[in-house]
Amino acid sequence: MKKQTRRTFIASAAVLSAGVASGMSLAPMEKNKKLLAHHVFFWLKNPSSKEDLEKLLAGLRTLAKIETIRELHIGVPASTEVRPVVDNSYSASELMFFDDLEGQKTYQDHPIHQKFIADCSHLWEKVIVYDAIDV
Amino acid sequence: MKKQTRRTFIASAAVLSAGVASGMSLAPMEKNKKLLAHHVFFWLKNPSSKEDLEKLLAGLRTLAKIETIRELHIGVPASTEVRPVVDNSYSASELMFFDDLEGQKTYQDHPIHQKFIADCSHLWEKVIVYDAIDV
Repeated sequence: MKKQTRRTFIASAAVLSAGVASGMSLAPMEKNKKLLAHHVFFWLKNPSSKEDLEKLLAGLRTLAKIETIRELHIGVPASTEVRPVVDNSYSASELMFFDDLEGQKTYQDHPIHQKFIADCSHLWEKVIVYDAIDV
Repeated sequence: MKKQTRRTFIASAAVLSAGVASGMSLAPMEKNKKLLAHHVFFWLKNPSSKEDLEKLLAGLRTLAKIETIRELHIGVPASTEVRPVVDNSYSASELMFFDDLEGQKTYQDHPIHQKFIADCSHLWEKVIVYDAIDV
């Protein structure tokens, strides 16, 4: 069977998830670049508190202004099938892409990220971070 | 301070990570649509086997043909800072986006996905799945 190749491209600076739309200043994303996905899962101390969840989500939205973020998704568990391998116990997630390790480091050290941690870390009891690089 | 809004858009059918380029048949992604991120982490039975990792990655690449996948990233742990919250113990990850729960269900039941599980599940000892919906 003949292998079909269909390349796609991104015309704009970044892909922005529907929930995050304020104060963006994202740099252009290169075509077919291997990206670093940074996915963070948060477990709230009070998982039943809607107020705490809203505070956390508001804090996460402030991160969108960090210029090395290429794509940002702020999410909550989706109501997919309950299966033993699916972990839907977290309260919120943040998924972003960076061009490289340096972009991720800039994000980690960025004052907006530091302010988010200072303002919101009292809300969560557990965080898991996965950093994956495209292969 | 005035809130600035800068919307971005996607000109093409889908964003495709650099590592996956064969046989795509992805449908158009809607602008500003709330997506479902499906992120799966695999822990190999033989984490030091380069051959097993390559087999798993090759299997993951076959998933790109499933038409409801909007964006696909196949990755391995990035060499970001070692921190207590960072889990870099997995062998490979698959990150994809769907338009909705139905798109994810179609993917789960798809013969290509089922073949991937049949061909590759003997390679891994643990899988964790996170499904997050944009808010």
